Amino acid sequence: MALMPDPIPFSGDPLWRASNERRDPDWVEAHLRSPASRFLPYWKNNPLTTATDAAVGQVPVAANAGDPCELVWLDNGVLHHLAERDRPVLLGLREGVAHFAVDLSPLEEPLAALGLEGAEFTDTRAAAGRLAAGEAGTLAHGRSLIDWHNRHRFCPACSHPTESRDAGSMRKCEACGAEHFPRTDPVVIMVAWHGNRCILGRQKAWAPNFYSALAGFIDQGETIEEAVRREVKEEVGLEVDEVEYRKSQPWPFPSSLMIGCFAHVTGDEEDVDPVELDGARWFTRDQIRAAVADPDPAKHGFGVPGPVAIAHHIIKDWSDQSES
Amino acid sequence: MALMPDPIPFSGDPLWRASNERRDPDWVEAHLRSPASRFLPYWKNNPLTTATDAAVGQVPVAANAGDPCELVWLDNGVLHHLAERDRPVLLGLREGVAHFAVDLSPLEEPLAALGLEGAEFTDTRAAAGRLAAGEAGTLAHGRSLIDWHNRHRFCPACSHPTESRDAGSMRKCEACGAEHFPRTDPVVIMVAWHGNRCILGRQKAWAPNFYSALAGFIDQGETIEEAVRREVKEEVGLEVDEVEYRKSQPWPFPSSLMIGCFAHVTGDEEDVDPVELDGARWFTRDQIRAAVADPDPAKHGFGVPGPVAIAHHIIKDWSDQSES
Repeated sequence: MALMPDPIPFSGDPLWRASNERRDPDWVEAHLRSPASRFLPYWKNNPLTTATDAAVGQVPVAANAGDPCELVWLDNGVLHHLAERDRPVLLGLREGVAHFAVDLSPLEEPLAALGLEGAEFTDTRAAAGRLAAGEAGTLAHGRSLIDWHNRHRFCPACSHPTESRDAGSMRKCEACGAEHFPRTDPVVIMVAWHGNRCILGRQKAWAPNFYSALAGFIDQGETIEEAVRREVKEEVGLEVDEVEYRKSQPWPFPSSLMIGCFAHVTGDEEDVDPVELDGARWFTRDQIRAAVADPDPAKHGFGVPGPVAIAHHIIKDWSDQSES
Repeated sequence: MALMPDPIPFSGDPLWRASNERRDPDWVEAHLRSPASRFLPYWKNNPLTTATDAAVGQVPVAANAGDPCELVWLDNGVLHHLAERDRPVLLGLREGVAHFAVDLSPLEEPLAALGLEGAEFTDTRAAAGRLAAGEAGTLAHGRSLIDWHNRHRFCPACSHPTESRDAGSMRKCEACGAEHFPRTDPVVIMVAWHGNRCILGRQKAWAPNFYSALAGFIDQGETIEEAVRREVKEEVGLEVDEVEYRKSQPWPFPSSLMIGCFAHVTGDEEDVDPVELDGARWFTRDQIRAAVADPDPAKHGFGVPGPVAIAHHIIKDWSDQSES
């Protein structure tokens, strides 16, 4: 019997998105009024969470950065606290119960305003490592939508105000008729490799000696494979022939789709030219395996991303392969 | 020796995008002034083309829908015909020569205004089947960007006008400081299959008896694989377990990235429930092979997409596999 791996962080949202039903305003309104419906509050893009087993409304148990936590869902009393323009976004249904995301960012002291104790608004990235598998998928889904609505209140075609429709899966401009849909920005992220070594790069803003997979947004008029080749060429000046898709991840900062690949580099020039990077280096499979297994950079001379990021998983997958 | 296949239509753009150099306004300006630079005009989203071997400026040879054609590039004299707000978009470099796209849509009679004979603005989709491999990639790249600029003249965050930056790879709002980047919308398109049969669907607007692969936009907080499973469930009510990525295609209507997959359906229920579709049917590998080889629907009772679309290629790839 094989142990089933958890879904990659920020995926695995168990809610059924009700793409058809949500187009019916009466259906949506009935769910907003239902006492069974559940509402996940965000404040400045971070979700409300509580330490697992803590009862909201009581004094919280002590929680530190690594303790398990869970999302906190409120009833529709929270709707009285929303600004008129901040419509709830329907995330989906579970066992017939509607789950919405709501934005409390206009409130200065949301916890006090709602009388909540034992809960806190938690940094999204930190929460991903503390939530049960799947809950981080719901969190990512809601965060991307709440943030998109906040930054798309006006029609980019004609400048008039837009309004949320279909329970948040579209914004409509009544002035020019344009319909605007939430963005998902596809990004390629790849282990560029040759023989027994791969190239990782680092950006200036990162911690010292921290390296990760090369990555970049897919451009217009490009396939996934073309984008991988262009980015490796742009970032380190090397040519890629074969590209192998491995896995993908939603990344809600603000709304990317990370497309993880292996990229076979045709040559193995020792010197790489980190055009857009602070640096880039070759690492052997043994080096990568050691760094993945123990995140302390002091032990290996370099660090790699932790399991919240797809980079960790594709780097690990590559290092687990025998040389080919 | 194996024959190398052409790139999938709308891919293969041979231009180097110069992602770093284009951030330097002086560098861009020098290329706009250069007599060597080349400009591809669009009018209402369609590119200027000429029948292959026709010399622009002379009376054209007769051209029909299937004849080969090529893109027509003009010199920077075309800049005098642009509206002030319509900045040229840099597509990229080839052998040091800058290639731009420009939009002539504000002109009522662009061919007469520019004194062009032997060239015409050609429907983008029709042109894809008539251009040499790779030229359709350049066409797709330019069309997606021109269209995006036209529909994003105002800041969706604050409603103020935005301006093109970095030779068209960004629009900046000077009022609120927001930077807006062209969209690429990822779409999953999949052959949903079980044993020796696959399910294709049809939409109401399509020609009678025309069927294609199921497809839909990737939503926020979803992996590629989750989007495939959701769309198959939404469109025909069936469960998918294994998802296999096959290939991708840029689709410039207006700017999608088609991500082509095989989706293994867990059951083989005869009745499918075409919730969002006009109809959906099971087809055997033999039926698909025959329809792919001869596009006349009268011979097989149904038709499938031609090679301009990735649907054609993934359906053909699946039908070429032996049952597994």
